[in-house]
Parts: sequence; structure tokens; C-alpha cells
Amino acid sequence: MKKQRIAIIGASGYTGAELIRLLLLHPYAEIKVLTGDSQAGKPVGEVYPHLAFSGLPNLVPLSAVDYTDIDVVFCCLPHGTTQEVIAGLPSHVKIIDLSADFRLYDTKTYAKWYGHEHKAPDLQKEAVYGLTELYRDKIKSARLIANPGCYPTSAQLPLMPLLEHKLINADSIVIDAKSGVTGAGRSAKQANLFTEINDGMSAYGIGSHRHAPEIEQGLSQASGAEVIVSFTPHLIPMNRGILSTMYVTLAQGKTIETLKECLNKTYRDEPFVQVTKNIPPSTHQVRGTNLCVMGVYADRVPGKAIIVSVIDNLVKGASGQALQNMNVMCGFPETTALMQTALFP
Amino acid sequence: MKKQRIAIIGASGYTGAELIRLLLLHPYAEIKVLTGDSQAGKPVGEVYPHLAFSGLPNLVPLSAVDYTDIDVVFCCLPHGTTQEVIAGLPSHVKIIDLSADFRLYDTKTYAKWYGHEHKAPDLQKEAVYGLTELYRDKIKSARLIANPGCYPTSAQLPLMPLLEHKLINADSIVIDAKSGVTGAGRSAKQANLFTEINDGMSAYGIGSHRHAPEIEQGLSQASGAEVIVSFTPHLIPMNRGILSTMYVTLAQGKTIETLKECLNKTYRDEPFVQVTKNIPPSTHQVRGTNLCVMGVYADRVPGKAIIVSVIDNLVKGASGQALQNMNVMCGFPETTALMQTALFP
Amino acid sequence: MKKQRIAIIGASGYTGAELIRLLLLHPYAEIKVLTGDSQAGKPVGEVYPHLAFSGLPNLVPLSAVDYTDIDVVFCCLPHGTTQEVIAGLPSHVKIIDLSADFRLYDTKTYAKWYGHEHKAPDLQKEAVYGLTELYRDKIKSARLIANPGCYPTSAQLPLMPLLEHKLINADSIVIDAKSGVTGAGRSAKQANLFTEINDGMSAYGIGSHRHAPEIEQGLSQASGAEVIVSFTPHLIPMNRGILSTMYVTLAQGKTIETLKECLNKTYRDEPFVQVTKNIPPSTHQVRGTNLCVMGVYADRVPGKAIIVSVIDNLVKGASGQALQNMNVMCGFPETTALMQTALFP
Amino acid sequence: MKKQRIAIIGASGYTGAELIRLLLLHPYAEIKVLTGDSQAGKPVGEVYPHLAFSGLPNLVPLSAVDYTDIDVVFCCLPHGTTQEVIAGLPSHVKIIDLSADFRLYDTKTYAKWYGHEHKAPDLQKEAVYGLTELYRDKIKSARLIANPGCYPTSAQLPLMPLLEHKLINADSIVIDAKSGVTGAGRSAKQANLFTEINDGMSAYGIGSHRHAPEIEQGLSQASGAEVIVSFTPHLIPMNRGILSTMYVTLAQGKTIETLKECLNKTYRDEPFVQVTKNIPPSTHQVRGTNLCVMGVYADRVPGKAIIVSVIDNLVKGASGQALQNMNVMCGFPETTALMQTALFP
Repeated sequence: MKKQRIAIIGASGYTGAELIRLLLLHPYAEIKVLTGDSQAGKPVGEVYPHLAFSGLPNLVPLSAVDYTDIDVVFCCLPHGTTQEVIAGLPSHVKIIDLSADFRLYDTKTYAKWYGHEHKAPDLQKEAVYGLTELYRDKIKSARLIANPGCYPTSAQLPLMPLLEHKLINADSIVIDAKSGVTGAGRSAKQANLFTEINDGMSAYGIGSHRHAPEIEQGLSQASGAEVIVSFTPHLIPMNRGILSTMYVTLAQGKTIETLKECLNKTYRDEPFVQVTKNIPPSTHQVRGTNLCVMGVYADRVPGKAIIVSVIDNLVKGASGQALQNMNVMCGFPETTALMQTALFP
Repeated sequence: MKKQRIAIIGASGYTGAELIRLLLLHPYAEIKVLTGDSQAGKPVGEVYPHLAFSGLPNLVPLSAVDYTDIDVVFCCLPHGTTQEVIAGLPSHVKIIDLSADFRLYDTKTYAKWYGHEHKAPDLQKEAVYGLTELYRDKIKSARLIANPGCYPTSAQLPLMPLLEHKLINADSIVIDAKSGVTGAGRSAKQANLFTEINDGMSAYGIGSHRHAPEIEQGLSQASGAEVIVSFTPHLIPMNRGILSTMYVTLAQGKTIETLKECLNKTYRDEPFVQVTKNIPPSTHQVRGTNLCVMGVYADRVPGKAIIVSVIDNLVKGASGQALQNMNVMCGFPETTALMQTALFP
Repeated sequence: MKKQRIAIIGASGYTGAELIRLLLLHPYAEIKVLTGDSQAGKPVGEVYPHLAFSGLPNLVPLSAVDYTDIDVVFCCLPHGTTQEVIAGLPSHVKIIDLSADFRLYDTKTYAKWYGHEHKAPDLQKEAVYGLTELYRDKIKSARLIANPGCYPTSAQLPLMPLLEHKLINADSIVIDAKSGVTGAGRSAKQANLFTEINDGMSAYGIGSHRHAPEIEQGLSQASGAEVIVSFTPHLIPMNRGILSTMYVTLAQGKTIETLKECLNKTYRDEPFVQVTKNIPPSTHQVRGTNLCVMGVYADRVPGKAIIVSVIDNLVKGASGQALQNMNVMCGFPETTALMQTALFP
Repeated sequence: MKKQRIAIIGASGYTGAELIRLLLLHPYAEIKVLTGDSQAGKPVGEVYPHLAFSGLPNLVPLSAVDYTDIDVVFCCLPHGTTQEVIAGLPSHVKIIDLSADFRLYDTKTYAKWYGHEHKAPDLQKEAVYGLTELYRDKIKSARLIANPGCYPTSAQLPLMPLLEHKLINADSIVIDAKSGVTGAGRSAKQANLFTEINDGMSAYGIGSHRHAPEIEQGLSQASGAEVIVSFTPHLIPMNRGILSTMYVTLAQGKTIETLKECLNKTYRDEPFVQVTKNIPPSTHQVRGTNLCVMGVYADRVPGKAIIVSVIDNLVKGASGQALQNMNVMCGFPETTALMQTALFP
């Protein structure tokens, strides 16, 4: 197969570095361009010592990129800075955007949560939400993918099929989510210092996190009516991993077993989604992998169920799913470069 | 004031060591006896190197203790082994039991959750549940205190006043709790090795943890009717701390502000309970202290609220509350030896 | 005893916060002023949530301090900014400087290592190096204390007596030191993010760390001749603690036992220095305490010994020793507010 | 190429699991047998949840293995139990032993350090020490490989070439080594609980660790005379990684540059050994990889140098080097299944 020539815009953040790690294993991909405006001119090994031995091109400024010989662009810029950049890309490149800038279908909702008007509303219409297992057909023919957020991936994969099949009620869904610290990015912030995070934990963005509308968009689409969820993220002293604990009410006449059957059936042939039987999912199972592992449990409260899902926020929650989407868009086997076993311990 | 002469039964576990740490600062307490059957004969410094320089008595077997000159016994034995030991203690000693053996009023509930008949049902009637702030009057005159569990302390302190004042509904309470690893004790178990815990997390005891009936006992008592809760504990890669995120439904006509006022009023004069305003509670705030810090937040879902509380599971969740109860029982100022500032970072 | 009225200059860093933690337990000290220029006006609880419940004064700008009613000043400013500030303090206040600005007797050595001329060379002559156990007599009557660095404290306490008594050779001393991350301060730096530090380690400042001349100054003074050491610090994924592993050559005819006897004798009556027998020192033993624990071990290489010492870098390595020095200067019992047991686990 | 059929004896420990992780990526290897006596009969996913989705055979007892269709045996049993097992294997299988049982050429040295007579002295003569880069030619034709220890790998790779070329003195070598906790294995020991390790560190086996004679064997062979080293290992709160800091004396007339040139030349064409220029090696660079990264630094003490090397103790320090050796023995490209990028963060 013809090798895809890759540009990573914003390669100096964690999702950029993780894309590099995965792409280096890809037989049909070649990293041609890495941008990083504040680090332009530096070898990658100065920015990421663990990539020092990989023979990668130096970082260049975004403005210096010639897209003529580029086939696929991964955009890893911060939220809010991406719409204009992507609007300026030539039409022949496939684009996978890892920011939140094209995830919300409704540009009004975007403006409300992100604090400024959407800068590329026409492109928004074209963007396909890249939750691969549930939107694969659209992704195949897409030019611009809005790669899902980490929390939304962990919550939508189990909840959307259950809502679609009317097995759980759409109201009273509680999503209590816990994330590793890579989710906060690589910017130097006092709050994210080792000393501030180590050996302790807290909740943040209680009742106001930007991933709530993204989750609700998917759940609403699945249920056919507007869904609002209770969603609280927490910061856990670990590098990678999201664990979402979800409390749901069974629809009239439905049981835990019905839920398990639905998820088993939905994901039976999916290499990256595993429904566990006994052992509760652990983030250790997915570290460094593109897996989502989920389990369904009986609550003590009659008529309620507890669902737990885990992903690696940098892989299935970001760069891995981005690469999975590239594989789908380019007609490569979907698992290409994504079948490593979790690094444990 | 007369010094209380103290015996700690089962001093070789974490709650025993934590009691020692706190008692060493107590001007009216003197540690006379430390038992530890499997470690009997050893200096404390061999079992706990951080206690090597404290001039403590060697560990002795339980059977060797003479209680004649003992005023207060802290019992730190594992669940299920304590009832018979305490039944055998002389009547002049005050007893504070840190196990679960006397926490459930109903011995049938005990038998169901702990897998064997209660071995001291008469003593059970005498035992006072030691959630100090809410049962202080009874504690003052008690001889036997059932010191609360760590999860129950973190959940009951905020929820009981709200239920008592009918500000939240008694059904549909979700308690998503996260604990440091000291909660699992000091036994050598593969699952609790550093390598198995570090840099990852998981839920456990989903829908079946033994602290659920203890929590429900308190909430039921507060609300005047039987309460069942959704309760999921999680193991977090940190040593100390419990953070409970609680999702509740506001009672008809009640608001977030009503809840805050209630908690502020309830705990206004309590030195160990703090209701925060803005910053979400963090376990870092309570490490090494007897504090419970709690906050109330608006949920996005109309009519719902999110409550977060944190404690140090070894202090307010175990040994600190035990000492607080001793202070109450002995007529000492309640804060004696308990006013250290959190160790941060 | 009369309460000392305290000002902490630069209270928003980790050593400032640690001083607050310790001073809050001190019966003869009262915190009157906390400065923090970038955070001026804020309640301490906004800067340090774990100090939110302590009834402390708000942070003020340095320029706003009136020293009339201040007895003792702790200066916690960064290296290089302190000389001028201290030179401007009125003569009635006792000063304990936690920076490196007055530690090196020779202002030329200072200029070489810190990159600028010393700005208060006269004051330098007055400053007393505050390694309490070894300079106690001078400290008693000092007005300005240069509080020792963390690595130098851990290395000088065991090595200086051995050199003074000619038990080890002054050449070929290797000090391999490992530190927790609080040693790097609270500034927002990418390199100190949780994600960059967690689950890995590295050496830094190899052959060029600024604590080398400070260590050598003490060792030279003890040995009576110029000493140069091999010194390599390492950053360890933990919050607190320094462990120094020191490789030394026994002087002709001396043995491991001679070394042990010397240290035992030197520190027999010192409450904050412990010479262990069997169990190798662990930073867990000293977390949150003012202790230095040390041990001497036979090397396999004939004629060589290995010495291990541990301290809490924020306590004996900074704020605890500063308070110990204040106790000495003010005639308080030296252990006042410093006798807590280590927080373990 | 013909697929090698693999048996892993003792697959339930960390080195076994790590071999599985790597072999699953190997195009010319097929895992046929996994033994684990205490876990026999269980699916791998019960013993290692992160391997639950890999389609591996269940664990079987060692006694049940039929070696007829096995080409390569990896032996991951504990030290001391391996000699008899390997002596009983049929002659057609290639064997790579990850224990220490065949590492010491001299069976008397073995007996002294491991406390019992060597049980297969004839096999010992046949065993080839598997430090791949330095013994590659012998490994090619070997039937039994003694795979090196983790500390010895990290120390011998930089020191052996320097000794061989007489660039450093053979006496006064100090090796201060720091290891992640996976080096301690998966046995349930109180000392290795998360709570006992987290946020602290200590030295162990001071002057008496069993890897000392293994290191000295290699260094002696390289220098042509008997070498004794000062060697102190430390336990660091991280899962993977060894960092060795080595203090050496330059041979007469040699410089730091000479050392660097020697290492650069020795390892120029080696894919798994990297000599860094500026940035000090970090264990983060090698996590999950078969790399050894090393650097040479000037000491402040004239005539001395500091060398730092890092490896992942489970990969280059165990299972990765084992697989590298299999590749050499079987004539596969040496990097097969070993070219992943480090997992960072």
C-alpha cells in the first residue's frame, strides 16, 4: 500500500508525541512534518528526550509547512486555535483534528461553552465525529474528522448503545470520571506540578466541564431526545488512564443481563472494545493501548446498574483513536500500528 | 488532668501506628501497652522504623496484657476477631473499637454482611456509634465506642444533616468514593503491591462493599426511613485520603443555598468540619489531620446537587476520630493532640 | 516565655508554607506578617488550601511590612534576591535566611557559583552558618543565620565529625544524593510537571550543582584542609526526602566500628540526629520531622565504608532547622514545635 | 522464516508477562506453552488482566509440558530453582534462562553468594552470558543463555569497554544504582506494598547485593585482572527503570573525551545502545524499550568522571534482552519485536 505522508501540527504536546510513538510503528505512514511554533528549529529529542533516537525531522513553524506532498494532517493544537488553521489547509489533505474545535455540531453550543464564536461554521458541517466504532461508515468517506474527547469516548462507548436500544432511562445518568494528569496537557502550570498532584486527589470543573455538552450530544443522538447528565471529572495521581463510573436506571422490564447482552453484541467484532465478565476494569489493562474495557454491574438499589469503562486517555482518548480513524479513512486494516499489549506494570 | 494509661490492641497495623503517632503528642495520655501477636517481643522500631525513636514499650501478645492499670483500650484488630476480645475486657476500661464489629446496630445485618453470627450481641446494645460530631452526647457517657468506618465518615457527615432537615430526597443518592491504599491495611497481598497499584486505578466491591449498610444505617436514622444508596469505592494510587463525590436530588423547593446554609449551621462551631466556599475539597488539605472538608455544588441537571467531602482515612476515618472520642469520653478538650496542620506537599 | 512575633518573607513557596505548619504548633511564636509579592492581598487559603483553616493574616507585599513589632524574620526568598532585602532590615530583628545568599563564607566563591557579585559582603561576615548541631554556640548569639541547604545538611552531619576526627580520608569522597521534588520549589516549570516526573528518574547538575561548594566548605573546615567531593544529585518521584549515599575511604587503621562510635558519641544527646544500627535509613522515617537518620556500613571493597543519611528536605533541610535555630537564638527548648512523629505511610 | 514455537516456564511473574508482551509483536514466534505451577489451569487473563484479550493458552503445570514441538524455552523461575529444571530439558530446545542460576562462571562463587551448591556444574560450562552487544558471537551458536541481571546490564555496558581499553582504573569504581520496584518481583511482601514504597526511598543490600559478583565478573574479564566494586542498590517509587551513577578514575593521560569516543565507537552501530551528548539520561527515555542510554560527565574532582546509564529493568534488564538473544540465536534480525518507542509520559 502507498505510504501516507503525515504532518503533525502542534507536535510538541502530549497528543503529538503519542501520535509519533504510534506512527513510528505504522508500515504505511511516514512522518514528514512536525510543527511546533514555540520550539521551531529544535530537534524532537530536545523537546521529547524519549524520541531522541527516532530519526525524526526537526520541528518547524506552522507557517513554513508546504502541504503539497502531505496526505494526512493531524492537528494537535489547543482548543480555540484550530478552526482557522484547518480552514486554511488545502483540500487534498485528509485532516484529523484532536482539539474540541469541531466536535459540537451546533456552533451555538460551541460558542456558549468555549467563549467565542465558531470561526469555521461551514467546515463544521463537513466535520465527522470520530468515535470510530459508532460512526465508522461516515468516517470512511470523511475529509475532516473531529476526534472525540477523552471523557466523551469513555462514556459514549458504553452508554450510546444502551440508550439507542432503550435499555436505560435517558434521565438521571451520573458519570463520575477519573483521569490521569496527561489529560491536563504539557503546559507549565503550578497546579499540575508533581508536588501539587502526588499522593492526593480532587474533583474539578464540577457541574461545568466542557466535555459535558459533547457527551450529551452523543447520548441525545442515541436516545432520540435531549439528554442532560451529571458529570464530575477528578484528577488522579497517575499519568494515563480514564475510568468512568456510570450510574444508570434500567428501563422498565430490563435487567443487568439485557445490558450485558447489548454491549456484547454491539462490540462482539470490535478489536478495541472489550466487555469484561468478572474482574472490574482497571486502567492498567489499557495503558498504552487503543482499548476500551467496560463492565456492567448490579447496583444494590433495585432497578439501577453501574457501568465502568476504562481507556488510555492519550490513546483511545486521543492519538490512538485518531490513528484508527486514519486507518479507516485510508482503507488500511483498522488495527494497523494499534495492536500493542498494555505496558504493565 | 490525670493521664490516661493506654493499651493499643493490634498495634502493628496502620491504624495502630497512626494512633501511636497522635498519642505521642497527647499531654494527658501515656502508652502503656502495645499488642501484636505475630510480632510479639519485637521493639516497635522493627515493625515500624518511623517509630524507632519514640521510647515505646515492645510489642506483647494479647494474652499477656494485665488491664489493672489501663484506663483506655483502643482495639485495632481485624473485623470479625474483635467481639470476643472486647467481651473479655474488664468493666473499668473505656474501649474504642476501630473495627466494624460493633458498628451495625442490627446483629442480623451484621451476620449477613460479615458472614458469621455476632459473638457479643449484648455488648452490641451498649456500643455507641462514634461519629463524634453527630453523636457527641451519647459518646460522653459511653463505655464502648464503635468507631466509624472511613467511607461512612466521609459520607454521613455531609448527608445526615441534609436528610434530617429534609433538604434532599432519600432515594437516588449516589456515593462515588475514592480511597488511598492505606485503607486496605498492611497485610502482604499481591493486589496491593506498589507495582500493581502505581500509575493506575480501578473500582472494587461494586454494589457489594461492607460499608454500604453502615452508611445506610446512619442515613436511615437521619431521614427517618430506610435509605438504600448506590455506593462504589475506588482504589487510588495514593497513601492517604478519601474523597466522596455524592449526587443528590434536592427536595421540593430547596436550593443549593439551602444545603450550604444547613451544613454551615450544623458545623459552624465544629473544629474538625469545614465547609468550603469556592475551591473544591482536595485530600491534600486533610493529610495527617482530623479534618473533614466538604463543599456543595450545583449540578447541570436541574434539581440536583453534587457534594464533595474529603478526609484522611487514617485520621478522621479511623485513629484521629478514635482519639477525638477518647477526648470526649475523658472530658479532655476535644481537639487535644489533633490540631496539626496538613502535611503538604 | 514571651511570644516571638514572626514575619515570614516569601511565604508563598514551599519552605514558607512548611514554616507556617511548624510555627502553628509553637507556643511561644505568633505569625504576624506573611509576605508574597505576586500573591499580595490574597488569603493564605487561596495560595495554600491546606492552610485555609488556620486563621492566618493575608499575604502582603514586602514593601508594606512594618518591622517595629516584629522579633524574628524568616526569609524564604529565592537565591540571589535576598542579600539586599536582609541588608535593609532593622537591627533589632533576628533573621534566619533560608536562601543560599549568606551560606558561603567567601564572597568570591559565591560570585563564581551564583553568577553575580555578593551584594552585602559586610553582612556576610556577621552571618552564622546554621547547621545547628555543629555550630550551636555561635548560633546562640547570632543575629543573622544562613540556614544550610538540604543536600549540605544531609552530607555534613555525618561527614564533618568523621573528618574532624581524622577517621576518613578527605580525598575521594563520593556523595550520591537523591531528592524529592519539593526541593525544586513551587515555580511552574514544565520539567517539574507531575507527568514529567512520575514513574521515572534522572540525575541533574552532574558535576556542577551549587550545593557542592557549600558541602566542601563544611568538610574543609572540619578536616582542616581543602576538600573537593564528587557530588551528584538525582530527582526522585516523591514529594519529600533526601537520601545521601556516601562512599568514603577509611583512614589508616580505622574501622567501620570506629566510625560508628564517633557518630554515636557526637550525636548521643542530640534529639534530631539518630544513628541506626541495622535497618538502612529510609526517607519514610523522617517525613514531616526534623530528624536526620544515618547509618554506617562496610563496603565490599576493603578499606572503604558506605554511609547513608536521610532527612526531610523541607524540615531538617530547610524550615525545621530554621525553627530549631530560632529556638536556640531565643533561648527556647530546642525541640519546641519540632517533636512530631513522621507521617507514615 | 519458520516460526519458533515458544514455551515460557514461570510465566506468572513480571518477566514472564513482559516476554509475552514482546513476543505477541514477533512475527516469527508463537507462544505455545505457559507454565505457572501455583496458577495452573487458570486463563492468563485471571493472572494478568492486561493480557486478557490476547488469545493465549491457559497456564499449565511445569510437569505437564511436552517439549516435542517446542523450539525455544524461556525460563523465568526464581533463582536457585532453575538449574535442575534446565538440566532436565531435551537437547533440541534453545534455552534462555532469566534467573541468576547460570550467570556466574565459577560455581564456587555461585555457592558462596546463593547459599547452596550449584546443581548443574556441567551445564554451567556450556552456558553463554547473554549481554548481547558484548558477547554476540558466542550467543549465535549457544544452546543455553544465562541472561544478565538488570543492575549488571546497566553497569557492564558502559564500564566494560572503558576497562578493556584501559581508559579508567580498575580500582575505586563506585556504582550507585537506583531501581524501580518491578525488580523485586510479584511476590506478596509487606515491604513492597504500595503504602510502604510510595513517596519514599531507601538503600538495600548495602555492600552485600548478589549482583556485585556478576558485575565484577564482567569487569574483571574486561580489565584482565580482578575488579572489586562499591555497589549500592536503592529502591525508587517507580515501576520500571534502573539508573546507575558510576564514579570512575581516569587512567593516566585519559580525558572525558577519550571515554566518550570509546563508547561512541563501541556502540556506533548498536540499535539498542545510545550515548547521549547533553541531556542526562532519564529512565523515562527507556520505559518499555530495549534501550540502554548512557552519558559521560566531567567530575569536579580532577581526574575523575561520572557515568550515568539507564535501562528498563524488565526489558533490556530482563525480557527484552532475552528476546534479543533469541533473535541472535535464531538468525532473525536482532531488532525484531523490539523497536517500540518508549511510553512517555
